[in-house]
Amino acid sequence: MLCFFIKIVDTFKYGLWRGSFIIADKMSKAEARSKFEGVFYELIEEIDAVVAETKIAQPARDWIRENLKYNTIGGKLNRGLSVIDTYKLVTNKSELTEEEYKKVAVLGWTIELLQAYFLVADDIMDASKTRRGQPCWYLKPNVGMIAINDAFILESVLYLLLKKYFRNTDYYVDLLDLYHEITFFTELGQLLDLITAPEDQVDLSRFSLDKHTYIVTYKTAFYSFYLPVALALYMAGLATKSNLEQCKKVLLPLGAYFQVQDDYLDCYGDPEVIGKIGTDIQDNKCGWVINVALERASPAQREILDNNYGRKDSEAEARVKTVFKELDIEPYYHQYEDKVAGEIRTLIDNVDESEGLKKQVFTEFFNKIYKRQK
Amino acid sequence: MLCFFIKIVDTFKYGLWRGSFIIADKMSKAEARSKFEGVFYELIEEIDAVVAETKIAQPARDWIRENLKYNTIGGKLNRGLSVIDTYKLVTNKSELTEEEYKKVAVLGWTIELLQAYFLVADDIMDASKTRRGQPCWYLKPNVGMIAINDAFILESVLYLLLKKYFRNTDYYVDLLDLYHEITFFTELGQLLDLITAPEDQVDLSRFSLDKHTYIVTYKTAFYSFYLPVALALYMAGLATKSNLEQCKKVLLPLGAYFQVQDDYLDCYGDPEVIGKIGTDIQDNKCGWVINVALERASPAQREILDNNYGRKDSEAEARVKTVFKELDIEPYYHQYEDKVAGEIRTLIDNVDESEGLKKQVFTEFFNKIYKRQK
Repeated sequence: MLCFFIKIVDTFKYGLWRGSFIIADKMSKAEARSKFEGVFYELIEEIDAVVAETKIAQPARDWIRENLKYNTIGGKLNRGLSVIDTYKLVTNKSELTEEEYKKVAVLGWTIELLQAYFLVADDIMDASKTRRGQPCWYLKPNVGMIAINDAFILESVLYLLLKKYFRNTDYYVDLLDLYHEITFFTELGQLLDLITAPEDQVDLSRFSLDKHTYIVTYKTAFYSFYLPVALALYMAGLATKSNLEQCKKVLLPLGAYFQVQDDYLDCYGDPEVIGKIGTDIQDNKCGWVINVALERASPAQREILDNNYGRKDSEAEARVKTVFKELDIEPYYHQYEDKVAGEIRTLIDNVDESEGLKKQVFTEFFNKIYKRQK
Repeated sequence: MLCFFIKIVDTFKYGLWRGSFIIADKMSKAEARSKFEGVFYELIEEIDAVVAETKIAQPARDWIRENLKYNTIGGKLNRGLSVIDTYKLVTNKSELTEEEYKKVAVLGWTIELLQAYFLVADDIMDASKTRRGQPCWYLKPNVGMIAINDAFILESVLYLLLKKYFRNTDYYVDLLDLYHEITFFTELGQLLDLITAPEDQVDLSRFSLDKHTYIVTYKTAFYSFYLPVALALYMAGLATKSNLEQCKKVLLPLGAYFQVQDDYLDCYGDPEVIGKIGTDIQDNKCGWVINVALERASPAQREILDNNYGRKDSEAEARVKTVFKELDIEPYYHQYEDKVAGEIRTLIDNVDESEGLKKQVFTEFFNKIYKRQK
């Protein structure tokens, strides 16, 4: 049945009308995702084997398996998959050998593990209730604050996998340095976010667009945009200093732009389309919208923002939104988006491909997010 | 004044009566400690400089400095100092150049940072109130769960320092592997401890001496006993496979023995001497004493333990202690201590010094802890 289905997809893939491309693309994306997920189930067995060697008691082995499954799988896997996509692009390979695929997929999973490390902890710090449509790990029966040690373990597993698959490469130490640096940067972004906008202490004088740019760049762009491409370049043997610098130059603004969209959609997106109701205003988030509003607000409008932002009260939220409307945030966002998109296109145009980097890596990222509605 | 004081100490040091040796030893220990602490104040400035390069806002820089100071300084610093002592011993150097001292001290501080990473998190997981005579970090005003990210940062700083001081050595990648492995082991020990003895769910059938040995070895012995010596050997160029194996063979049982003492003293130590009142029985800790008791208890005694262990109730605690008394735990401990001490002495006697390792490294550790009362 599955084979039959794949044949149909293949037929579609080479069809001439646009609809078929969309279906083909969707199907192959789902296949790529499920193949990538399959690797993680293998990795769980491999990790368990290493843990078992220490002769730890069975309940702890079971616990770690559950931690790995619950917290690493179930997301969109965009970061992990983009390591594979980038690797194929820069090496000009549409097909990879099984061994090569496994290695690059392992790199992909190390990012997903890094993210799991952060998210398990973030959910405790933000007192979140759900993640990826299920209760947060720390809210599961018997877990509670053990979740902190579980987060630590997710990070350790990342290094265990890097060692198993990359210890004998000449770029192993660079991978470790890269991970240490980006982990630290992400923590710096998270710290600035946490102390600028604590949920229980509203003080808009702490906010600024500069801080916002720092937060989105350090907390998100480094690990979500730069890291996947850098990892792929290392494995492809193309991680020259110039290539890595160029990646940063394009991918950090691109990642920041992605996060600005997120902030905008939280306030102005269609809940039906984005799949959730935005809560940034009530949660006192240091998002793009409020920071723009603060720059444009009159003293009277500022007072309304001060008195109503970050309050768990839908009427207060409505008052904030009225000020946003008066300040024409929506049309300003569209101008801003066009401007930033133009700048990023120029950055991509100027990429020097002489050391094996490809503009296409960046245009693919760009096309996935430009003018997105969700 | 200080110079004068040091001169007196020097005079004492070469004196002939035992008392002078004790004073000299005490003084030079305090000096060594304060010199070592001085390095950390330099490191705080160096770390701040790296953080400042990212252009993060000042409040975040201040926060990190405070995190570093509050959580890394103030302990006994035994682990960090033993890197320096071991290094001097195996290199036959009583004096180090300033540069050499700084490097080995940095290694010492990386252990203290690793420990800080664990302790900040442990205190949240155990809902502790104080640490080193001050409120736990997560209980400080405005900190709360941000402490989790602060713990992450303490770990990242460890790698930042390793990179700054050891990136150009040929053992840098080994240091990173060592840290990743020992971090993971410590987390495994912590996990087994947390799920075997959760404070709110007493179930003594989960306990066993095997689990206890695993917990003390993985949670404590690896990072507190093996790690300092391994680090010193790397820097001394003596980290051969055989030397590292021999260190593990001696230092893991030694570390486990240290922890057994801790467990014993929690129950039987003199509060005046150990400086605290033991709470392991009320806290449902999977310690050595209860595990021995469980092995020796009759069904009737077992019932008393099941009904009274882990309860926040001093009468229940007294009933547990009565059973311990009936089971002759105290005399058994002294037999046990003699047996283990004998085994460890034999292990030390059998150490092969042909690749530059020295028995004295281990005897110094051993002498510090043998028959300790606090």
